[in-house]
Amino acid sequence: MSGNSTGRIFRLTTFGASHDAAIGGVVEGCPAGLHLDLEAVQQELDRRRPGSTELGTARREGDRVELVSGVMDGVTLGTPIGFLIRNTDARPQDYEHLKDTYRPGHADLTWEQKYGVRDHRGGGRSSARETACRVVGGSIARQLLATAGVRVQAWVSQVGDLRLGDHPFDPADAWSSPVRCPHPPTAMAMAALIEAVRAEGDSIGGCVSARLSGIPPGLGEPVFDKLHADLGKALLSINAVKGFQVGSGFAAAAMRGSTHNDALEPDGAGGIRSTTNRGGGVQGGISTGADIVFDVAFKPPATVMRPQASVDREGRPVVLEGRGRHDPCVVPRAVPVVEAMACLVLADHLLRQRSARI
Amino acid sequence: MSGNSTGRIFRLTTFGASHDAAIGGVVEGCPAGLHLDLEAVQQELDRRRPGSTELGTARREGDRVELVSGVMDGVTLGTPIGFLIRNTDARPQDYEHLKDTYRPGHADLTWEQKYGVRDHRGGGRSSARETACRVVGGSIARQLLATAGVRVQAWVSQVGDLRLGDHPFDPADAWSSPVRCPHPPTAMAMAALIEAVRAEGDSIGGCVSARLSGIPPGLGEPVFDKLHADLGKALLSINAVKGFQVGSGFAAAAMRGSTHNDALEPDGAGGIRSTTNRGGGVQGGISTGADIVFDVAFKPPATVMRPQASVDREGRPVVLEGRGRHDPCVVPRAVPVVEAMACLVLADHLLRQRSARI
Amino acid sequence: MSGNSTGRIFRLTTFGASHDAAIGGVVEGCPAGLHLDLEAVQQELDRRRPGSTELGTARREGDRVELVSGVMDGVTLGTPIGFLIRNTDARPQDYEHLKDTYRPGHADLTWEQKYGVRDHRGGGRSSARETACRVVGGSIARQLLATAGVRVQAWVSQVGDLRLGDHPFDPADAWSSPVRCPHPPTAMAMAALIEAVRAEGDSIGGCVSARLSGIPPGLGEPVFDKLHADLGKALLSINAVKGFQVGSGFAAAAMRGSTHNDALEPDGAGGIRSTTNRGGGVQGGISTGADIVFDVAFKPPATVMRPQASVDREGRPVVLEGRGRHDPCVVPRAVPVVEAMACLVLADHLLRQRSARI
Amino acid sequence: MSGNSTGRIFRLTTFGASHDAAIGGVVEGCPAGLHLDLEAVQQELDRRRPGSTELGTARREGDRVELVSGVMDGVTLGTPIGFLIRNTDARPQDYEHLKDTYRPGHADLTWEQKYGVRDHRGGGRSSARETACRVVGGSIARQLLATAGVRVQAWVSQVGDLRLGDHPFDPADAWSSPVRCPHPPTAMAMAALIEAVRAEGDSIGGCVSARLSGIPPGLGEPVFDKLHADLGKALLSINAVKGFQVGSGFAAAAMRGSTHNDALEPDGAGGIRSTTNRGGGVQGGISTGADIVFDVAFKPPATVMRPQASVDREGRPVVLEGRGRHDPCVVPRAVPVVEAMACLVLADHLLRQRSARI
Repeated sequence: MSGNSTGRIFRLTTFGASHDAAIGGVVEGCPAGLHLDLEAVQQELDRRRPGSTELGTARREGDRVELVSGVMDGVTLGTPIGFLIRNTDARPQDYEHLKDTYRPGHADLTWEQKYGVRDHRGGGRSSARETACRVVGGSIARQLLATAGVRVQAWVSQVGDLRLGDHPFDPADAWSSPVRCPHPPTAMAMAALIEAVRAEGDSIGGCVSARLSGIPPGLGEPVFDKLHADLGKALLSINAVKGFQVGSGFAAAAMRGSTHNDALEPDGAGGIRSTTNRGGGVQGGISTGADIVFDVAFKPPATVMRPQASVDREGRPVVLEGRGRHDPCVVPRAVPVVEAMACLVLADHLLRQRSARI
Repeated sequence: MSGNSTGRIFRLTTFGASHDAAIGGVVEGCPAGLHLDLEAVQQELDRRRPGSTELGTARREGDRVELVSGVMDGVTLGTPIGFLIRNTDARPQDYEHLKDTYRPGHADLTWEQKYGVRDHRGGGRSSARETACRVVGGSIARQLLATAGVRVQAWVSQVGDLRLGDHPFDPADAWSSPVRCPHPPTAMAMAALIEAVRAEGDSIGGCVSARLSGIPPGLGEPVFDKLHADLGKALLSINAVKGFQVGSGFAAAAMRGSTHNDALEPDGAGGIRSTTNRGGGVQGGISTGADIVFDVAFKPPATVMRPQASVDREGRPVVLEGRGRHDPCVVPRAVPVVEAMACLVLADHLLRQRSARI
Repeated sequence: MSGNSTGRIFRLTTFGASHDAAIGGVVEGCPAGLHLDLEAVQQELDRRRPGSTELGTARREGDRVELVSGVMDGVTLGTPIGFLIRNTDARPQDYEHLKDTYRPGHADLTWEQKYGVRDHRGGGRSSARETACRVVGGSIARQLLATAGVRVQAWVSQVGDLRLGDHPFDPADAWSSPVRCPHPPTAMAMAALIEAVRAEGDSIGGCVSARLSGIPPGLGEPVFDKLHADLGKALLSINAVKGFQVGSGFAAAAMRGSTHNDALEPDGAGGIRSTTNRGGGVQGGISTGADIVFDVAFKPPATVMRPQASVDREGRPVVLEGRGRHDPCVVPRAVPVVEAMACLVLADHLLRQRSARI
Repeated sequence: MSGNSTGRIFRLTTFGASHDAAIGGVVEGCPAGLHLDLEAVQQELDRRRPGSTELGTARREGDRVELVSGVMDGVTLGTPIGFLIRNTDARPQDYEHLKDTYRPGHADLTWEQKYGVRDHRGGGRSSARETACRVVGGSIARQLLATAGVRVQAWVSQVGDLRLGDHPFDPADAWSSPVRCPHPPTAMAMAALIEAVRAEGDSIGGCVSARLSGIPPGLGEPVFDKLHADLGKALLSINAVKGFQVGSGFAAAAMRGSTHNDALEPDGAGGIRSTTNRGGGVQGGISTGADIVFDVAFKPPATVMRPQASVDREGRPVVLEGRGRHDPCVVPRAVPVVEAMACLVLADHLLRQRSARI
């Protein structure tokens, strides 16, 4: 059973690899009657595109999304939304030398161990190219969420050992910096670090953080499908992600309950609020209505422009050196993908919640 | 659509809450012909039981698992394995004062916001009592995994700011310490810290780490159902978990690719190996055959024996103080639950892999 | 992947066989806030019970349903409803002679071919005993449907070559006849036929028909999950069923479009109606609001009190003769099971429909 | 939750409607390493194509399948197989008059009741155009099945009141007749009947029957996912189908057990056989190894070239008359669709069976 779908009611299935004629997907379960802004979908895709930031790969892909079905006169019909993105700038010859060797830190060897065959061109389906389809699906989800007042924003919070930390910032400023960090001085330092790493032929890791706002209380399902568990899976499924934490996260391990608990108090308008949010917007796996905040750790890209020890198909040692066009740091371009995955999970749980009560 | 099931082929569904007559579950998809050691299932359940360690709650629950179906003459039939654990030591009167108030850091308010009704007795279904059923299901999964040579071991690696760190240890030693930390000096310090915290009427967080060994290469599905993504979801679904990381985890964010990559080399026997394992046993979401290693962060238990500000159902401020019998630190008793969730995920992917090739 | 669950949002999972300690199930996805009449659940179970009609088997099973979880103070909590029915009148010794032989027309041989092992006692899990759990789940579904004005009624429409035909009848009268046929003269003839067949040591087939009323228009999903396709699968999954038809059914094959179409006309109140219902309440797989009508064909029970040629485990010819207590005709006792399966499908689609529109 | 997917492990998802730019689909779960004959896929699609038989609609659609992903050098990669079929001969103007009216016997009204909006062009997604994608998916399934020796053949067994009956025939002869009936004299009579009905501006129903051979014993899952129940759902999900029966089917209702049972006997080679097959190749929902035989009833197409009473969006009575190009009888073109659905179900259960035993 393949794992190419995400979501239970609002469901995205993707297909295609970087050197196929196209990549694409199907969004099932989007309710009928949603006015869909196709230009907004394209704009989100543009934000992820190679070349969208000068810090990324030199590849230029047109990345035009073609909606095939499910929408008429700008309104969703309730039927599946099929879409395609043509691959226009693939250079398979860049990968010919990888046909019989396995790159360290890549999925070359594991895919071959799994399937017995593999598409060696550009990483095949394990390439981050696939995440373009997630951005399309996520953008449709985002438009559904907007009808419920939900907003999703992510930004770069760490590159190497440079952290955003406690600097005050507005997430919306992330897009004014090529590194997608909303605090300009930190963003400039991060950009300089990425350029230095690139000059060394090396790569570097980082973190993306996110804030989901306007969440109705009550989203998330008990026990196995807790809201933050589904978010965690969705984020961990992005290429190069090694960790996920919500709210206080790993710092909670060092804390005491008397400090950690978010005290409840009247909000003065007949409701209940907390002035702290160490829970990160969830209690018991269910949204509280407070902002959901989480962090995602990305490893440094495996492709570096330096010689690396590896082996070939015959088990003989070889020395590989990165070729092609690659990002020295994935987090700037990962920001829209993080947002997309969060949107997909929230849209699904928003619809699941419709069956919670009589 | 409720979230009371986990797994696609090997699937566990649980039901029941701490003050129902029983809790229970159904394991679907366990292959026929597995010789099932029922005593081993009971022993795993005993390891999670309240009172299994002197550091836990004073509650004593018999926790006898009753297998209702699916096994004949000690062999699985391929049919669903239904099981029950009777609740024998519930004291609903301990919770009567919570009927109309919401405890900070608990799911009281969110469950009511979700469903409009809630079982206030002992946290209802959001109580960690439910995890006993996961241990039963996990133990059956573990016996299936054993036939493929897979072993799963977890231990306490952090309590408060006490960390196991780089001390050499044997995971099997975890069970000789009540705190389930396999390094005796650290375990003693952790136990002393937990007792001190308990004496203060407070609680404290911690981390559980795990090593999964003997994993066949090729487990895990591309894109959305990556092996570590499914592990992440499974672990994040345990009560009080706030973070999950695999391999290098959050530390990867500060690393360079030239350092992070696990170089490949001939293993001298015709195969391929890495001498490092920063990937944590997965590349591209698929097992490499190396040990899978991950860490899970738990927040401090929300129930503390100190006054805490909260509100009642009418939105009026109240002061709550913990009553009943509660663990000041959940990580010792969480170790078998962490193992159970890892076993469930691996068993499911072991069976999913049977369809990967022609 | 085992097939012990039905439904996507409103979902029933069953476990157990006739000679286990109990059979049982879990209903997931029942919305919170439903006032559940437990006595009504028991009454439905009583209608299916062996001995509920003098035409059935002589076995007497207490068949008391025990609800373990998911309901507090008579109201559903939104959490899974676990339940058990103890097996109290099993006589495994009646089946000892079947341990090494395969009964013709039964699943003995196929289960062994599938799993390599089998529970030979009473047919194991392929026994119709399992359908008692469907009746419990169906009764909960029925109570959910009642809140939407939906009613489900089934009756015996054929036994052998005796057909209800065009006789006018009220489905509610089915329960006043032991054969569950609502037309008394036909019911009496059917009962006499069943008794004659029993006296001959033989068995006989029949049909159950059903009418689902008060259905909101719009239920059913396009393409693969058409409402009547899901009904068909649910009904075909009942033991001994060999055929399913909706509306005009197989008779449609001989009809012309000009005759078959249900003409639309104003209903005089601003709505639209048809005066015919050859579609059987669905068009394009979606409910029209008209009554859904369908028929289900049951084969004669395989167990007959006559010598039958068969083979043993070694492939040697043997002669088998039915023992134990068996129904000569299953349709009277199948009526509540047919209703239960229809209720389960409708409840699921009622909840699925909540996500159809923005 | 939309119903645009079928299968659990081998899974087809379709999208698109007759007047979109294209229709298409995704096959997930096809094992890696299958040598896929793309020309065979195209040939199967050609058999379903409008114009493939002179008895069908006058529309001419190119219907070229474009495989986008999942196959490299003619071998499946284990990754999802995305495909497209461009719509080249749509004439939306043929349907403009239907924008505000509801055709009797069609899904126009029910889709609007379900979603609040609808694509009125050519029936939108409720058009049988969608079944072209099933044929593509079914053809891939068929090639997987062939590796296990499974063959699937369907034919027209009834048109109006003309039945194939007990005439001896070879299913392979179905393709030499435009009506897809393998008995030439009956086929000629059926063709004449269809032409006569067309001349009258009317339409007519029929039946398709199928034989699935070379089935390994043991396919099908207990209880809810019985093999014939999944077949039934798959077949009932085809446009215009009103009934499904397996083996003895509805005739079983009039039979006695002593006659109906398929006696078991040694096959002379150490195995077990039956000389009859009233079970239709399944016992207890699990394949016996005998041929699986079933029948499917199709209603007459709703579009007739005669005036029919209907209503418009305002609820006013109108008279509609069929326009456009329509089949007077769908069964000839339904034959490849019936085969496709059977292939999809069998391929899924073939893979599901891989997890049945330790």
